Amino acid sequence: MPKLWNDTISEHRHAVRDAVLDAAAALVHEHGPTGVTMSQLATAAGIGRATLYKYFPDVQAVLLAWHERQVGGHVQQLAAARDAAGEPLDKLAAVLRTYALIGHRHHGTDLAAGLHRGPHLAEAEQQLLALIRDLIADSAAAGDARTDVDPAELAQFCRHALGAAADLPSEAAVDRLVTVTIAAIRPQPRQ
Amino acid sequence: MPKLWNDTISEHRHAVRDAVLDAAAALVHEHGPTGVTMSQLATAAGIGRATLYKYFPDVQAVLLAWHERQVGGHVQQLAAARDAAGEPLDKLAAVLRTYALIGHRHHGTDLAAGLHRGPHLAEAEQQLLALIRDLIADSAAAGDARTDVDPAELAQFCRHALGAAADLPSEAAVDRLVTVTIAAIRPQPRQ
Repeated sequence: MPKLWNDTISEHRHAVRDAVLDAAAALVHEHGPTGVTMSQLATAAGIGRATLYKYFPDVQAVLLAWHERQVGGHVQQLAAARDAAGEPLDKLAAVLRTYALIGHRHHGTDLAAGLHRGPHLAEAEQQLLALIRDLIADSAAAGDARTDVDPAELAQFCRHALGAAADLPSEAAVDRLVTVTIAAIRPQPRQ
Repeated sequence: MPKLWNDTISEHRHAVRDAVLDAAAALVHEHGPTGVTMSQLATAAGIGRATLYKYFPDVQAVLLAWHERQVGGHVQQLAAARDAAGEPLDKLAAVLRTYALIGHRHHGTDLAAGLHRGPHLAEAEQQLLALIRDLIADSAAAGDARTDVDPAELAQFCRHALGAAADLPSEAAVDRLVTVTIAAIRPQPRQ
């Protein structure tokens, strides 16, 4: 069955949009988020400037869309890490490690552009916190996490603690950070 | 012996400066860091505008000086908390709790003014990290902290983890955060 015309149009629009965002990713990587222009974006995406302006009003809008796509990809990575592991505590460890590595690798690429203020990020952050909270609750139910502190509070703790990953010099150090963070979540010996 | 003239001048200058910074603290508390003017500052400090301008070129300079004084006070509080406790682990707990409570109470008062970018804060942060690192090393030497991760890395972990205090709803929640953070630092049972 031949594709409907509207589907073809929609697919084309998505392809152009993706090409612009790919170009943005490459240019941000090369010049930093403040050194990208609409002309550069159009050239790198293989479209005319006039066409680019039909998709995005300015560089900031491109960077925001790029960041949204990136953050959406990260949320998918976290869910995939959860689904690939078995026991709740293993799922939790996989998610925390994935989150820490994302923070470690992406440090400095988007902060300068103020993209961390967007509502899309607040939503992704809520998804992340809910994901971690649920895995902590599951781990607690299985006897593998402490029960004296609310899972939502522990999830906040994890998110902040793993923020240290951005400043760490190596992935080995990130692994140690995850190990230390999980130690805080485990059932505690009586003092 | 009567005071030297230069000492009197210097004391007077410090008193005026302190009065301006006290006024800044009160006005920031009332109007937020972006809602303060030089006229308000002069009035609240009980000096003329012309005099104020001899001390500070603009509001930003006043806020920066106020923040420097505030951060300096926090560093002193942390050192006092350390010195008041006995064993290294108790000192560590006292310092972490004090730091978390500072973050909890001062959340939002100075961030909006972009004051967190100043070099004075980077220096205070280094002092804080060194203070925590040394207490973790002392605790490890006493058998009360883990030895499989470098104390400097653990100090970074603590600083980030306690950043969660700013988002917590109560001091009881801050206490739980400190308990959880210290659990991560303790010697770990063999898995």
